[in-house]
Amino acid sequence: MALITIEGIDGAGKSTLAAALAREIPGAVLLREPGGVALSERLREVVKDPALTVGPRAEALIYAAARAQLVEEAVRPAIERGGTVLLDRFVDSSLAYQGAGRGLGVDAVRAINEFATGGLRPDRTLLLRVDPAVGRARAAGRGEAPDRLEREADAFFAAIAAAYDELAAGDRERFVVLDAAAPPDRILADALRALGRTP
Amino acid sequence: MALITIEGIDGAGKSTLAAALAREIPGAVLLREPGGVALSERLREVVKDPALTVGPRAEALIYAAARAQLVEEAVRPAIERGGTVLLDRFVDSSLAYQGAGRGLGVDAVRAINEFATGGLRPDRTLLLRVDPAVGRARAAGRGEAPDRLEREADAFFAAIAAAYDELAAGDRERFVVLDAAAPPDRILADALRALGRTP
Ligand SMILES: Nc1ncnc2c1ncn2[C@@H]1O[C@H](COP(=O)(O)OP(=O)(O)O)[C@@H](O)[C@H]1O
Ligand SMILES: Nc1ncnc2c1ncn2[C@@H]1O[C@H](COP(=O)(O)OP(=O)(O)O)[C@@H](O)[C@H]1O
Ligand SMILES: [Mg+2]
Ligand SMILES: [Mg+2]
Repeated sequence: MALITIEGIDGAGKSTLAAALAREIPGAVLLREPGGVALSERLREVVKDPALTVGPRAEALIYAAARAQLVEEAVRPAIERGGTVLLDRFVDSSLAYQGAGRGLGVDAVRAINEFATGGLRPDRTLLLRVDPAVGRARAAGRGEAPDRLEREADAFFAAIAAAYDELAAGDRERFVVLDAAAPPDRILADALRALGRTP
Repeated sequence: MALITIEGIDGAGKSTLAAALAREIPGAVLLREPGGVALSERLREVVKDPALTVGPRAEALIYAAARAQLVEEAVRPAIERGGTVLLDRFVDSSLAYQGAGRGLGVDAVRAINEFATGGLRPDRTLLLRVDPAVGRARAAGRGEAPDRLEREADAFFAAIAAAYDELAAGDRERFVVLDAAAPPDRILADALRALGRTP
């Protein structure tokens, strides 16, 4: 498993699971999106800035740009060294948030991301599935001020959750759907089993 | 003429001509790329920052993102109000710089930009054609420190000049090729004539 991605709506528990997996998998490199390398962290600041007007197309392209640099500078080199990379969000996030949530269309956003990643695909994608209301409540409980995307309405997050379900249904080999309402240690055990590691 | 773009290598005289045209065409809106609206100016800072590593794919996507926001926030609204928009660089710059110069391929970069602009095309494109060495000497004469792109080698600018020539040869209706070695007032007169305005 060279590239493992962790997906789900905001508050699903991606960062919690990613950190736990990084502790369990020796030598794994954990990276977050958007970010992980200098350019992409700068783009993260820009795209999350509540003071800026960011249209849907620009948003999709900024995420793709951040991803392109992360892949080139960090993900591919780590894979080429024989390592395992854990990514807290990847292309599926853009398909769900920008493709479905923003209404740009999953296929158009997929094409942009093929260009960005040079066609790199995850070996396994762990989808943390949880009710959008639960996700929002958990995200709010983190006590950080909501960023530009987190201020969106409930319908936006419902569309994203539905899109994730569709993506998973369309690729049962790559996706592993995990019940994110379970306690963290249970989710970690399920994830390790799905990755062929005995917890 | 709703949308007029001005293209050419660095130092060709685009900004000089654009400013002169804006004075001659009543009510024309002059915008520069990358930039023109808040998000795009922020992206301009990022992409020109010599301290950042920016790979070719990320570079192409950042320019496309800046363009998407400029089109949505400024270009389309101005055209819809019946105005004339003058753009100091547009999609052809990305085809030449990122498609040819960076070797990403003109078609791949065109596809990204179709997404970015929603298919918006210039009514007329003024290509300022000048020897790359002359362009570099002029740009150096501006007395600003060279940015990340301006530090590239001569071969890079030769590839870009050749790509512009090919683009113009492929669309003789949209492109007007102007001799940028001429004095500024002569170039302005040629441009006005090409736009159907008696100088
Ligand atoms: N399985 C879980 N059950 C209950 N709370 C959780 C669980 N996983 C994470 N949390 C909590 O929910 C909040 C959001 O988790 P986080 O990992 O930041 O989600 P994400 O990265 O998907 O937005 C955090 O406060 C975290 O401690
Ligand atoms: N036709 C011209 N002949 C000689 N110098 C010119 C001409 N047009 C512009 N310049 C000078 O060349 C430099 C670059 O011009 P500029 O308009 O900034 O080019 P660009 O925007 O294409 O990079 C400036 O110092 C400008 O005054
Ligand atoms: Mg997180
Ligand atoms: Mg200029």
